[in-house]
Amino acid sequence: MMPHLTTLTLEQKASLLSGAGFWATTPVDEAGIPAMTLTDGPHGVRLQRGDADHLGIHESVPATCFPPAVAVGSSWDPEVAEKVGAAVGAEARALGVTVLLGPGINIKRSPLCGRNFEYYSEDPLLSGVLGAAHVRGQQRAGVGASVKHFAANNQETDRMRVSADVDERTLREIYLPAFERVVTEARPATVMCSYNKINGVYSSENRWLLTDLLRGEWGFDGAVVSDWGAVGNRVAALAAGLDLEMPGTGGVTDREIVDAVRSGRLDEAVVDEAVRRVVALADRAPAEGAPIDAVTQHELARSLATESVVLLKNDGDVLPLDDATTIAVIGGFAQTPRFQGGGSSHINPTRTDAALDAIRALAGQRGQQVGYAPGFAVDGAGDPVELRAAAVQMAGSADVAVIFAGLGEKDESEGFDRTTLDLPAVQVDLIRAVAAAAEKTVVMLSNGGVVSLEGWHDDVDAILEGFLLGQAGGSAIADLLFGRANPSGHLAETIPLRLQDTPSYLNFPGEQGHVRYGEGVMVGYRHYETVAAAVRYPFGHGLSYTSFETSALAVEVTGDATAVVRVTVTNTGQRAGKHVVQVYVATEAGPVRRPARELRAFRKVALEPGESRSVVLDLDRRAFAYWDVELGGWTVAPGGYRIQVARDASTVLAEETVTLIGDVIVPVLSFESTVGEWFAHPIAGPALMEGMVAAMTDEQKEHAVEQQDQLRMVESMPMKQFLGFLGEAVPVEALERLIEASKAAQSA
Amino acid sequence: MMPHLTTLTLEQKASLLSGAGFWATTPVDEAGIPAMTLTDGPHGVRLQRGDADHLGIHESVPATCFPPAVAVGSSWDPEVAEKVGAAVGAEARALGVTVLLGPGINIKRSPLCGRNFEYYSEDPLLSGVLGAAHVRGQQRAGVGASVKHFAANNQETDRMRVSADVDERTLREIYLPAFERVVTEARPATVMCSYNKINGVYSSENRWLLTDLLRGEWGFDGAVVSDWGAVGNRVAALAAGLDLEMPGTGGVTDREIVDAVRSGRLDEAVVDEAVRRVVALADRAPAEGAPIDAVTQHELARSLATESVVLLKNDGDVLPLDDATTIAVIGGFAQTPRFQGGGSSHINPTRTDAALDAIRALAGQRGQQVGYAPGFAVDGAGDPVELRAAAVQMAGSADVAVIFAGLGEKDESEGFDRTTLDLPAVQVDLIRAVAAAAEKTVVMLSNGGVVSLEGWHDDVDAILEGFLLGQAGGSAIADLLFGRANPSGHLAETIPLRLQDTPSYLNFPGEQGHVRYGEGVMVGYRHYETVAAAVRYPFGHGLSYTSFETSALAVEVTGDATAVVRVTVTNTGQRAGKHVVQVYVATEAGPVRRPARELRAFRKVALEPGESRSVVLDLDRRAFAYWDVELGGWTVAPGGYRIQVARDASTVLAEETVTLIGDVIVPVLSFESTVGEWFAHPIAGPALMEGMVAAMTDEQKEHAVEQQDQLRMVESMPMKQFLGFLGEAVPVEALERLIEASKAAQSA
Repeated sequence: MMPHLTTLTLEQKASLLSGAGFWATTPVDEAGIPAMTLTDGPHGVRLQRGDADHLGIHESVPATCFPPAVAVGSSWDPEVAEKVGAAVGAEARALGVTVLLGPGINIKRSPLCGRNFEYYSEDPLLSGVLGAAHVRGQQRAGVGASVKHFAANNQETDRMRVSADVDERTLREIYLPAFERVVTEARPATVMCSYNKINGVYSSENRWLLTDLLRGEWGFDGAVVSDWGAVGNRVAALAAGLDLEMPGTGGVTDREIVDAVRSGRLDEAVVDEAVRRVVALADRAPAEGAPIDAVTQHELARSLATESVVLLKNDGDVLPLDDATTIAVIGGFAQTPRFQGGGSSHINPTRTDAALDAIRALAGQRGQQVGYAPGFAVDGAGDPVELRAAAVQMAGSADVAVIFAGLGEKDESEGFDRTTLDLPAVQVDLIRAVAAAAEKTVVMLSNGGVVSLEGWHDDVDAILEGFLLGQAGGSAIADLLFGRANPSGHLAETIPLRLQDTPSYLNFPGEQGHVRYGEGVMVGYRHYETVAAAVRYPFGHGLSYTSFETSALAVEVTGDATAVVRVTVTNTGQRAGKHVVQVYVATEAGPVRRPARELRAFRKVALEPGESRSVVLDLDRRAFAYWDVELGGWTVAPGGYRIQVARDASTVLAEETVTLIGDVIVPVLSFESTVGEWFAHPIAGPALMEGMVAAMTDEQKEHAVEQQDQLRMVESMPMKQFLGFLGEAVPVEALERLIEASKAAQSA
Repeated sequence: MMPHLTTLTLEQKASLLSGAGFWATTPVDEAGIPAMTLTDGPHGVRLQRGDADHLGIHESVPATCFPPAVAVGSSWDPEVAEKVGAAVGAEARALGVTVLLGPGINIKRSPLCGRNFEYYSEDPLLSGVLGAAHVRGQQRAGVGASVKHFAANNQETDRMRVSADVDERTLREIYLPAFERVVTEARPATVMCSYNKINGVYSSENRWLLTDLLRGEWGFDGAVVSDWGAVGNRVAALAAGLDLEMPGTGGVTDREIVDAVRSGRLDEAVVDEAVRRVVALADRAPAEGAPIDAVTQHELARSLATESVVLLKNDGDVLPLDDATTIAVIGGFAQTPRFQGGGSSHINPTRTDAALDAIRALAGQRGQQVGYAPGFAVDGAGDPVELRAAAVQMAGSADVAVIFAGLGEKDESEGFDRTTLDLPAVQVDLIRAVAAAAEKTVVMLSNGGVVSLEGWHDDVDAILEGFLLGQAGGSAIADLLFGRANPSGHLAETIPLRLQDTPSYLNFPGEQGHVRYGEGVMVGYRHYETVAAAVRYPFGHGLSYTSFETSALAVEVTGDATAVVRVTVTNTGQRAGKHVVQVYVATEAGPVRRPARELRAFRKVALEPGESRSVVLDLDRRAFAYWDVELGGWTVAPGGYRIQVARDASTVLAEETVTLIGDVIVPVLSFESTVGEWFAHPIAGPALMEGMVAAMTDEQKEHAVEQQDQLRMVESMPMKQFLGFLGEAVPVEALERLIEASKAAQSA
């Protein structure tokens, strides 16, 4: 389908590099190049027919709202992500969409980020695996993905200008690996560049990011599209590797491209290459897909939602609600569910399940009585004291109170960040009052970003964290409350004790145009575990209605820097359930500060009661590697690595230590190398020691210990300065020979 | 005395810009330019006659070892600093020294820095005030100072190469103000550049640092001297503003300078200017000073040491030791005092007071019995179990045990950093065992860097933290133990609960050539207070044998950004004592994240029992200002400021809020300004609101609240992109008129 570019005028080519309006590319009818539709996603199709915007303000065509990324992240299950992708892909295809914008795979650097509900996790492996699965599912359905927002877009505050000031190791180890995995494993049709700057350079104009790294290192062969309105300098962006500017600018920036080529400031070959990439998207333009059955899609949304809820606490097995005769359902979110976030991902759902209805239906089948009291008003109307009093009264006469709490739509959204982790005070007061009155209290949370559980956590018996579950969340919640489904979600982000404990606290959201990523690689659990800080619930935490045992850990080293992990998991309880095997790696090897442990493999396994299964997980080079800024590459330090199977990031169940050969690096010495580096060098060190001992007088040998102490004082001194201090006595030629030997060893 | 430079050859001029050997400048006899001696300090003279080194290895001429900076910092008394300066100046002058290298005023970024004993504080105001006082004292004695290490030299690890990666606000507010104060208030003869790099540029080659800032902004008119061996590229260093390279290089770098001038790469005027500055030092060359009386100097060292000890804890007023009939003195440091640090500041003392001798003398006068058991061996010899058992036995039969614990000389030094805050385990075991056996237990600590008190703090009754007290420390300690002097030291650095709690923990000492100052301005108590973290003892803490009351706080605003603080302090106890009035300022005004509070004024006041005194402290502009990176200057944000008189950084005794006019800044708007900035603008904001309301339909007005929510979503969007989203409907001309209005307002 690719036309010969030679048949296109420069003006036509330039016109292909920006949208015709908000949601379509520019067609060139003479060349048979169609307009292609790009549409907001990613957990549903937001196709706008009338007033177009990228802010979720105006209505869109009805579509199924699947669980947003925050829920999919909590599923720890690439199958869930892939099914979401496939389902939204099918709906998009039926609507003639070529590219559905998503998934969002940015790292949750701070729990305050207003858009965290659109992202999977604080961990790059989990984010990358889920993102790749989503892309696979969506693209298999015939609709291109647009993995976003590339890169280091971890806040909403000043998002269109702020510079994320972040060092390369941190970029490589935390903020880029999810993109790298999605690009290399799932080959998304497009990558969407972010609004922000990275180290002072706009992503849209960042040649290192869009070309050297994305295409050069990762082999990306799709098109780079701008976030809507992210292009400041069109010509600079094109030169950097940004192919398609969205939305269109009425031809203004097309003319800038033409002028730049005509005046010799831009090579026309750059234009041609970008056109090739944009036009290639048309190969993906879907034939009209199969019609969508809204009921089937809704049921899928429901089953995916059940996989995503995290049972945080379940004292005395108050859940599931088998034994309760009377149930007091409390909280406005039971009736008016909170199930998606605000902004460009805001879906006009085909229908909405309220948990209250689903609870009434299930309880009715079982002869359980259900009462309902709003307790507080979602829209803030009504007298909170009266609402609370009525709820407390109802709770006092029920066997169990189930409180639906959470954040309202206005509390969090694309476009701004939160400033607190707290639930609204009216809800905290309600939970405490109900818990004091009720025999048993369950709290069901709906919120896009993590909320604090402090002030009421210890007062209640059970907590289910649903985050945002999509349009069928209400039914899914009822299924879980009554044990028709077994919770299997795990936290994809830490729930801290205090906002002040979060690693980015003092550097979020930055100031005066800059946000310093001062915590480096110590993001999320990497921070808490490394500083041994207490948290409310660690990354990876999640309970079940059944119990699991982990045994027979065996690690086999399969190469210089690879290993295979085998572990047996058993369902030791009475219900079918799913367990997540979490494999972390910990090491002190190498020259950089490593997090206490890092998630390097995981697998969600379904087990019938009593069933036992051996799970095999591969650990590749990257599972052990750090980014070495001096060598400019991924490096596996020789040494010991602890392979830990853990219940969560804080709780290791079994551990085995392996020794890896790794990358044996013989440093090249120079006179700039420190005395310490010389003595630690595998070739020069022994030679120096031998020479020193040979040159020592007997008296000096007697004081050898003191001399070692003095050596410690100068170990950080470059050899050049050290020689200056020692004067003429040193055999410089001998050192030069050792430098040559170190060079020879490295090139060997 | 300044010769006409025209009489000097280029070679002669170049030779003046590096040393003749280790400790002297190069003379030019024909021009009457003498060799000048520079010598290590700063709490004593380390003049080497024989084998020269800069590492504290070879012996030096005997000199009085005064309390090192860590002790002077704890005095919170510029008089103490000035007396140290004057005393070492007098000794240096008597020895014919022109420049004594010191004081060191780097900020204690981490308690692990091996050289913290040479620095005053984690706070820049305290460091700057004490450093300026030292320089005044020393230079009044006729010996030039060399304030060091300029700048951002906050660790020993890799100190000769590491790049301190630190943003400008942090440099300006934390790491530079002490230098700025010393340079502008005390006019030191020289400034010594540090070994390290700042943001990738060696201090020795950093023109911004050595010329733009130091000379341009601060008006420094002395000479910049290199730390010993800090020059890598002599010509680049000279061009950047480094005048004198030390030690000499046998003429090698002199020839590089000559070649650079001859080949046109270096302007000879740069050489002339540096020569002028070096030769000007000769004007300071001392006439032979008065002879020094070692006994008088020692007594001064003793009295200054008593001012510097911090009484951390004194449960049940166990101190002073008035009531004890039998005293068990335990711990090797009682007999072999630890009183100074290792490295270039290491003094060959004229004598050394052991606390044990001084205690025996004082106790003898009072008829108190003193026993001694080493408990552990300072040099590690002997059987720790036997030593401990003997000490415990003695403690069990005494009224009070006084344990001398601390760090040994090998535990901390210039040249390397510590890796733990812990006391040696053998000492912790000893303290716990003795405390269990003794009726009362006092711990006397000697250590250069902060040590952890955990594991034994609650077991003992009293703790005196002496840090390092100089050669007369033993006598000073005895004076304090027996109440001949009253403790008045306060912590110049926080004692944390855990190493992991320290703000630089994850970014110290850096890796692969870089150390990221990720905590920004949140250094020391600024961090702990801002994140509300518990510490063992806060910055500023210090008890006394008497008690003080603070009352009648009154704050008078004296200008747009200045105020005067008046407060009454009363000695409400039975002994004469000294109290430190600590004034902190707290604010949320302005666009940058401010520490919870910052020390902005302090005064040490001596009070007889019952005496009351009104203390007046000025708060100048800088007491309220932050460094604005966008405006490139010190800025006082209009708004509320809480003036807090505090017992320590955690404990506010009295507070008054004032409102300052500050610097009223009308931002200049542009189409890059965000929607939020437009609406917040004092001129444009109201105009926009008025226009919006006028353009609204009645239906829109009804939904005004929803519209405000939508506005929140776009508040971080630059106006340019916002207009792109809105389409043609917007009156761009009206916005352009508002931009002009904002420009006119700012220039007004």
